[in-house]
Formats: sequence, structure tokens, C-alpha cells
Amino acid sequence: MAGGRKIIIDTDPGQDDAIAILLALASPELEVIGITTVAGNVPLELTSKNARKVCELAGRPDIPVFAGAIRPLVRHLVTAEHVHGKTGLDGPVLPEPAMPLQERHAVDYIVETLMAEPERSVTLCPLGPLTNIALALNREPRIAARIREIVLMGGGYSEGGNVTPAAEFNIHVDPHAADIVYRAGVPIVMMPLDVTHKPRTSKARVGAIRALGTPVGLATAQMLEFAERFDIEKYGSDGGPLHDPCVIAYLVKPELFSGRMCNVEIEISSELTMGMTVVDWWGVTERQKNAMVIRDIDSDAFYALLTERLGRL
Amino acid sequence: MAGGRKIIIDTDPGQDDAIAILLALASPELEVIGITTVAGNVPLELTSKNARKVCELAGRPDIPVFAGAIRPLVRHLVTAEHVHGKTGLDGPVLPEPAMPLQERHAVDYIVETLMAEPERSVTLCPLGPLTNIALALNREPRIAARIREIVLMGGGYSEGGNVTPAAEFNIHVDPHAADIVYRAGVPIVMMPLDVTHKPRTSKARVGAIRALGTPVGLATAQMLEFAERFDIEKYGSDGGPLHDPCVIAYLVKPELFSGRMCNVEIEISSELTMGMTVVDWWGVTERQKNAMVIRDIDSDAFYALLTERLGRL
Amino acid sequence: MAGGRKIIIDTDPGQDDAIAILLALASPELEVIGITTVAGNVPLELTSKNARKVCELAGRPDIPVFAGAIRPLVRHLVTAEHVHGKTGLDGPVLPEPAMPLQERHAVDYIVETLMAEPERSVTLCPLGPLTNIALALNREPRIAARIREIVLMGGGYSEGGNVTPAAEFNIHVDPHAADIVYRAGVPIVMMPLDVTHKPRTSKARVGAIRALGTPVGLATAQMLEFAERFDIEKYGSDGGPLHDPCVIAYLVKPELFSGRMCNVEIEISSELTMGMTVVDWWGVTERQKNAMVIRDIDSDAFYALLTERLGRL
Amino acid sequence: MAGGRKIIIDTDPGQDDAIAILLALASPELEVIGITTVAGNVPLELTSKNARKVCELAGRPDIPVFAGAIRPLVRHLVTAEHVHGKTGLDGPVLPEPAMPLQERHAVDYIVETLMAEPERSVTLCPLGPLTNIALALNREPRIAARIREIVLMGGGYSEGGNVTPAAEFNIHVDPHAADIVYRAGVPIVMMPLDVTHKPRTSKARVGAIRALGTPVGLATAQMLEFAERFDIEKYGSDGGPLHDPCVIAYLVKPELFSGRMCNVEIEISSELTMGMTVVDWWGVTERQKNAMVIRDIDSDAFYALLTERLGRL
Ligand SMILES: [Ca+2]
Ligand SMILES: [Ca+2]
Ligand SMILES: [Ca+2]
Ligand SMILES: [Ca+2]
Repeated sequence: MAGGRKIIIDTDPGQDDAIAILLALASPELEVIGITTVAGNVPLELTSKNARKVCELAGRPDIPVFAGAIRPLVRHLVTAEHVHGKTGLDGPVLPEPAMPLQERHAVDYIVETLMAEPERSVTLCPLGPLTNIALALNREPRIAARIREIVLMGGGYSEGGNVTPAAEFNIHVDPHAADIVYRAGVPIVMMPLDVTHKPRTSKARVGAIRALGTPVGLATAQMLEFAERFDIEKYGSDGGPLHDPCVIAYLVKPELFSGRMCNVEIEISSELTMGMTVVDWWGVTERQKNAMVIRDIDSDAFYALLTERLGRL
Repeated sequence: MAGGRKIIIDTDPGQDDAIAILLALASPELEVIGITTVAGNVPLELTSKNARKVCELAGRPDIPVFAGAIRPLVRHLVTAEHVHGKTGLDGPVLPEPAMPLQERHAVDYIVETLMAEPERSVTLCPLGPLTNIALALNREPRIAARIREIVLMGGGYSEGGNVTPAAEFNIHVDPHAADIVYRAGVPIVMMPLDVTHKPRTSKARVGAIRALGTPVGLATAQMLEFAERFDIEKYGSDGGPLHDPCVIAYLVKPELFSGRMCNVEIEISSELTMGMTVVDWWGVTERQKNAMVIRDIDSDAFYALLTERLGRL
Repeated sequence: MAGGRKIIIDTDPGQDDAIAILLALASPELEVIGITTVAGNVPLELTSKNARKVCELAGRPDIPVFAGAIRPLVRHLVTAEHVHGKTGLDGPVLPEPAMPLQERHAVDYIVETLMAEPERSVTLCPLGPLTNIALALNREPRIAARIREIVLMGGGYSEGGNVTPAAEFNIHVDPHAADIVYRAGVPIVMMPLDVTHKPRTSKARVGAIRALGTPVGLATAQMLEFAERFDIEKYGSDGGPLHDPCVIAYLVKPELFSGRMCNVEIEISSELTMGMTVVDWWGVTERQKNAMVIRDIDSDAFYALLTERLGRL
Repeated sequence: MAGGRKIIIDTDPGQDDAIAILLALASPELEVIGITTVAGNVPLELTSKNARKVCELAGRPDIPVFAGAIRPLVRHLVTAEHVHGKTGLDGPVLPEPAMPLQERHAVDYIVETLMAEPERSVTLCPLGPLTNIALALNREPRIAARIREIVLMGGGYSEGGNVTPAAEFNIHVDPHAADIVYRAGVPIVMMPLDVTHKPRTSKARVGAIRALGTPVGLATAQMLEFAERFDIEKYGSDGGPLHDPCVIAYLVKPELFSGRMCNVEIEISSELTMGMTVVDWWGVTERQKNAMVIRDIDSDAFYALLTERLGRL
């Protein structure tokens, strides 16, 4: 797997986080040098356990997993068990992980790795609240110039929010962290709800993954079926969205995606719009363009990629 | 024209306001009992003059026109000459109006009319900032129970804003007024940018109106061509949106429109999102549904209606 | 009484408002040309009735009383019956007023009076929420240049607030109105809690007023005793503060007071500090000095003046 | 010095921080187990150097000094060289420190120490922005139950602010950190400007310290004279305040101080009042009392204590 683009996945699994991790571990274009966990969909203890379960499911107990922030920077932690189930990874039955958590704190790991690796060689892939990334940028501001890119799942533009009318879950949980990250001067690619709501699950798409006939295929199908339940109830649609794997798919095949460089600011003052990603899509302000906002995806090609790659595990 | 549904048009003409007024005056389903003006696209003196120009163009110098609020409730007035031209009605050359402004203040007129007319018989059609409506509701709260309906142009959902990334012009100019109106308990139908951006002008559509061969047809075509200029530059699209006439078209043919009852709250705390209409389209909060949010329109039928009606003037 | 400085008292009686009105009516230095009422301590219907009761108590049923705003500009009305009693004027038993309310709305009266009287000849004395004043400034911005001065009771500096830890009642009830008034460019003299908490009632001071032996003396003593009840419970002090009469005393004998020109801004964004008067006493900002902030008073001379003047009625 | 109450001083020296450190090191009632530094009055590099200079001045190069947060949690760092001089410790000429900074990050040191020491045995003494304390509480929430007490310098009640009209420097620099600390459920004693403005320097008081005839006495006198310069210009008073030593004096002789348990909340929403400590001194809200707010001090006894103790070094 050497030779791939080095990434650190920062994550709060979460079924879609899990599938994103599996996709990354299955893709030779990427080298997952570490996984860091954060409180988000479920508390830190569970996200840290789930990340390890997924590594073991992928046959990669060698991936170092580091536990990070136990709570958001300023606000109280709000979790999403109503979406992800009590464990955060409801759906498949996966064994308790045998592999240990690393001793180091995730934030220390991120800082030390970025300072040790060649400049602009490591990409951060945040799939949950941005707490760890913000804490790392705060602790050692010099890492801003050493990160190759941050490719993250979070926010929304025309889709508004999911957890409130204006805010998406990852950003809403820790808007102050997002504010720090978006103002850090690091190149950002943002996968908002606009794009992650497009590649919806369907019987055919889930069926193709199940038909892989492997433990990974089966578990993924079970996770997809559990996760879509919530969105089908809420939106009355055929299937559920698939948020976090878009981040990994973008790193593997950016040609499946399209977007636009925009200014994005994070609302941290008003409770009504708290955690909104204010995207200046039409350039009506003079504010600096600080993020590539992705809005379109080739959904069929995305599922084809996902299915093919999961088949390698 | 007796027998039509009684409406008061509250307006800041504005080319699209002008076309909305023309459409209303041409529609026997509606009885325009008065026009009230407000500072918005251009200062009050100009909107008050423009409203009268349009009445005279329609051959209706009998319509009483009342000047209202000279500035927003709390914030400084921001106008939009870059969109509408220096006069607010650039495009056609219309004579100075001979008909006088009424003596009464628009807010007094609204209050007294609503208290005098039968309960739930008068519909308010705000096409600009909601200052006059809010002042009327403040001055005489009993009118809230006497208004039949408020059908307004303002706000945005998936389109976000136009004057800032989060806010539409009418609401942004006077967010506090909008906040008052949306919390007043009056039935509201809201035409946000989502719907008003759909019936875009095109050569064929403008041509059909010009081909009416009447002064109204010619002036309308000239207004449309002037107004689309700004949006074509900004969005790179084929034509411009047509905001305010949607309000009148809805009153004439509601079957051309579709939407959903939602909670809508107005952001008045944060400068970043000031004036945003926070629409709970997916019902993720328990907040009371206070507005019918229109998002779709039959654009061809809309232009057909507009053209046919303008031909009657 | 001709020859005195012309004042309009804008008020929400309230025992201390009542005493302020009595003091004004008893002072030949002032000519009370009108009284306007506003919702505040109690709803508008009661403040409008109480103002007339007080005029009749003073033997001045000729003073025109105009009812104004029934509610604050943007926020819901919050009243203070726990301080002022159910009627707003608990304490004395005063007959129902025989004198009528004027027909005109208070805001119209203020605007028309200021436009008709000589420039800079009329002083406004707001003793309650600033709703009427803000509405008048909004309706006719030209009055800003015609007002001689606004001398108001409201806000706090070192005393913070009374209704919340940060905000004084009058400003908190309608912070948006206060924001408009403080930004209007009119000369302002502000009597904050800092000064109004100093001339506290005492047995001797109330006794001297009662000893006048007149109906006005008796009623004033009863109002003072009722009003101090709340503050004695809250602050555990000997007597209560006397807020609104400070405004009138300042107009009669400014030499009893001292203060400093400062910038004052009104908090309208945050619920925690909503309605705070942010006083830049030490000049740490570059913001324009827009108000004379009074902080000291000669309390003994104030009570001597009050007692002597009430004796004239 | 064993047997004293264990304290960690978290500091951004600053002349008054320096004097606080000297007072602590001179007081057998206290055992300074570590000093942690934070960006505040000057950048972190300087506060970290200054802390060591002061330890060496006190003859205590054995005290471990740990560098902490290089910037506030969310906002940009604002420093105060106009008050403290370019070095942060202008006034005396002190040699470059020979003692090293510790390797560990201050936040790690705080967390590990609190987890290792007996429960409720260690007191934190923050004398600067609360960034390190907030980061420690975030990283390991269990420390909240292990801290004996936080005695801090910060905020204001009747004095309002110093850096803005509403906010005191330490809290304004990192209001989000303060918000976290005040909501953490840890017993807090707060020394606001109300108390720290009382023990003002004077010729006699500074003279008594200089008359100690020791290097510490001389350097302290020079620091006091440098620091008072700013306040004398600003307030026109006889001397300057002495902020941070109040924290240490309180730990040594609490009987010199008086205050009241109050609810204190931190403003983090509005730019106008950002970083204000909203103190509910009069209990007008139902919010939980979370801090002992000190407002009075025996200033003479304070200077006597300070002088006597400095004489021991
Ligand atoms: Ca996730
Ligand atoms: Ca309009
Ligand atoms: Ca009053
Ligand atoms: Ca300090």
C-alpha cells in the first residue's frame, strides 16, 4: 500500500464513517497512516471502539487508532443515536476489537505526524466534528502550512441542514472548531449535504454490495440498510444518503465530483443558525475563497467504485 | 373590477414590482384597493413616484397610492440601484405622474382599511421590505386577525440569498420587520427565490410581451430587458428571474404553484446570516408551521398568464 | 406657566413616572405641552389611564394626553406589575379620570408638534421604553434635527441592570427602540440606574412629603411607600430608588447632577446582555460620544426640590 | 515550603503576574508546584521567558515552567504591549533566564498533575486568559472534580471592562475559554476589576517596597512604576491597580477580601459585549451560583502583606 497518498482519517463511526474507512483501506491510491477518533455520532469511547472494529473487519489491525476529543470545543456534546443506533454502528454484528487503542492523544498524533512528515504530504480526512483538527491547529499553528489538504464531510448549501434547518450535524456539533479550520488558511475540499444526498442507496446498489459474498460486503450492506432507515422515514425517499465515503471517493477519483471555489464562513453567533456553513456560491461578497465546495457527483460511478473496492477486502 | 378579491399592494418599484402591479390591475379576479410604498430598491420618494407612473401606464390614475416608511425599523436603509437603475424603474421612458400621492401615511391607511373592511376580506401583497406591514401590526395588533392572508415575495431556501450569501434583499433590508410579520399569526404565503428564480426571461418570452404592440407591452418588455441585465451578468444564465409578479400570479392562479407549510424564522441576531429566512422544510424542529413556502411554479403557464393579462391593458 | 421650557413627557406610569409628572407640572421652569404614553410598566391602557389620573391629581386636566405604542418594536411586551402593582399606580386611591385621551396617536402628535414648533425648542422626556420616540424618528427623520434634547431615564453603567444582570427595565423592554434613539444624532442626557439609585426614599424624606398635608403630598407619599417595598425586599436597603423624577429635576436644576459625555451603544444581538447600555465611560473606543451620562446627584437637594415643588400643587 | 497549599499558577507575565508569582513564592502557606504560561499580555514566547525570569529573581530556578496555548481557542490573539511594554515585563532589567522551559505542554502538565495528585488538593491560579484551563478541562473532563478551587483574576462587574467598555482583558482575549471554565462545575473565586482597582499604587506603597533594599524589592518597585504609568494616563488617578497579586493574597489571607456567591455567565455571542462577565449580583435570575465574586479588599493590609512577603525573598 506504500506509494499511496498519505491520509489521516478523523472520524466518529457511524456507519458511513465505517464504509469510508473500508473504502480507504481498499484503495491502493491511498495510504491510511492513522485513524483518529472524535466524539460525534456517539461518544468517544464508542467511536474509538467502532474505528477498531472496522479496521479488523478490513483485516488491518495494524492501522494505529488514536482517541481524540471527548467533547466539542465550547458547546455541549450532542450525539445522534437516533440515526446511527445505540452503538453508532448498528446493523452488522461485529466482534469486540482485539487491537488496542494507541496511547497518544489524537491531537498529539496529528501534530507530531504533520511536523515529522514531509511538508504538504499528508491529507486530513475529517468525517465528523472538526474538534481534533481545530485543537491540533491551535496547539501547533505551524501545521497549517504542512497539511497538504483537508477533505472533509460537513455543511450544506442548497440542502441547508439536517440537524437544524440551517446546520449539518458535523458542523453543528462543533461550530467553533469548524470556524477555526475554515479560517486556518489550509486548502479545504468540502463535501456538503448537497453532494452527499445524491448517491442514495437503492435495493440494486445495496444488493450489489451484498452480492460480493464477503464478510465486508455483508457488513456494509447491513450498515447501509440500517442507516437508510432514518432518512427514508424523514424524507420519504427511496434510500438513504451516503455521506462520508464521498470524501474518500474524491481522493481516489476526483473526476467523479464537481464544485466551485467559494468563501465559506461558519455561523457561531446565533443559536437559530448556529453551525451553518455560509457558502458564497455566487461571489456576492469580497470575502476570500477558502474552500472547494463540491455539489455534484456521478452517483453510479461512485457506487461502482465503492462496490469494486469493497470486493478487494 | 368589483367582485374581485381585495388586495393592497405594498411595494418598492422596481421593475418587477411594476410588472406585478400591471398584472394585478389587469386581472379581474383582483381588486386593487390601494397601493402603499416603502423604501427598498430605491428611496421612498422614488418608489412613490414609480408606483404612480405604473398606475398611469395602466390607465388607472384612480388607484390611491400612499407613501409609507422612509427607512427600515432598526437598520440603515440599503438600496439596490445597481440592479434597478438610478430611478428604480430604468428601461422604459415613462412620463412624470400627474396623479397625486394620498395625504395619509401608508401605515395609517393599512390599519384603517383593515379595521373598516369586513374581517378576513383584504389580502396584503408585500413586494418589498416588510416595514409598512410590521409598523401596521405594531400600531394596531388587532389587524392580525382581520387580514385574510399575506402573500409576499421574500426570502430563500435552497437558493440561499442574493444580497448576501444567506439573505434575500427584501428580508435583509428590514429583517426586524420580517421577524414581526412572521410571528404575527397571520396566514402567510411566501414566494422565495426558490420559485422566483424559475420563470426566467427569454427572448421568446419577452418577445411575446413586446408583440402585444401596446404601450404596456412595450414598457414591460423594456423593463424586463433592463432587469435581466444584472442577473445575466451575475449568474451567466439566459435570462433574469421575475420575482414580484409571482405574488400576483399566485392570487390569480394558485394552481400554477406548489409548496409546503413550514416554520419560517428570521435571523436578526448575527450579521453573517442577518435576514435569512430559516425554513424548516423537513420538519426537523417542533416549531409552529407559520408559512406556506412556495418552491415550484409552472413557468410557461405563468408567462402565458402574464402576457395574456398585459394584453388587456 | 408660559415661558417655561417646552417638554413632552413620554411615560408609562408607574409611581415614579407619576411623581415625575407632578414635579414637572409644579415647576414654572417647564411647560408640559403634552404627555404621551407607552406600554411598559403596565399595558398601554393602564399607562394612558394613569397619566390622566395624575394630571387630574395635579389639577391639570387641560394637559393633552396621547396614547402611543401598544407594544415594543420587535420583542414581546414584558411588564412589571411585580414592582408597580396591578394598576401600575398602586398605593394611593385615585379616582377614574374624567378627562379624555386625545384622538391622535402619540407618535403622530410628537412628529407634528416637532415639525410645527420652532426648531430646537421642544425637549423630549422619555420615562419608559423608547418605542414612541423611535417610531417618531422613523416616521419623520427630520425631527432629529428639531428636537432640543432628549433627557431620559434608562440604562445603567456601574449598577448594571435591574431586570436582568445587564439591562435596565426601560431599555430591556424595547432595546431596538433604544438603539434607534441613541443612533439618531439627537443630544441625549441619560439618567441611568447609577444616579437614580442614589436618592433613596427614607422615613424622613417620605414624611416631609406627607407633611405637606395636601392630596398631592399624601398620594405621593403613598406611591413612594408602595414603590420602595420592592427594592427594600430585593436590595435589603433602607428605601427605594426614585428613577423618573431625576429627569425632571435635571431640567429644573441641572446643577444638582454631574456626568460625562460618552459613547453609549445598545446591545440588540445577544439574549444574555440584551438591552444593555454599553457606556464607554473611560473612552477606550473611538466611537462617537452621543450621550451625557449622569452618575451623580445631590440627593438632599433633590428631595428638597421635590418636596417644595409638590407643595405648590 | 512543603505543607503549603498546592497551587499551579497559570500566567501571562505581565508585571502584575510577576509580582503575584513573587508573592506566591514568598508565602509559606502556598506550595507552587508548577507554573504554566499562556499567550495574553504578550505572545507565548515572551510570557514563557518572563515567568522564568521571575522564578530566577526569586531564587527559585527549581520551579517547573511549562509553555501552554499559543493562541486563544477561537478568536485571534490580541496582546497588550501598550500596557506592559514590548517585553511584557518592562521596568526592571532582568537577566535572560538560564533555567529551561519544561518539555511537556502546559495542558498536559495540568491534566496529568491533577489526575496524579490527591483529589481536591490542587488549586489553579489563572492570571491570564483561561485558554490552558479550558483546554485541560476539555481534554480530560474528569479533572473538574479533582480541582480544589480555581482562584482567578478576570472580568468586572461595576467597573465594566478595561479593554472594551464591557470586557476585561483576560476574559476578552479568550471568552470561549472563560465560558468553558465558568460552566465546568469547579468552585471559582473571581477577582474582577472591582477589587483589583482598589489597592492602587502610591508613592508611599511603592516606596516601602523599594525600601526593602533587595533585588526583589527594587525590581518590584520598578515594575509597579512602569505598570501604573498606563492607568494614571487613562484614569487620571494617583496610582495604578494591582490585579494579579490579589489572587495570591486571597489564598494567603482570605480575610482581607469579601464578596458574594453569584451566577456569572460569559458573553460569547455579541461583538459589542464580547467577553463580558455577566454577574447576577442581585440574584435577579434563577441561574445557578457558580462563582464567588470578590468586590472588596483591605488595601492597606494587602500592601502590608505584599511588602512583608517580598522582604523574605
Ligand atoms: Ca461521520
Ligand atoms: Ca419589490
Ligand atoms: Ca417609567
Ligand atoms: Ca495576567
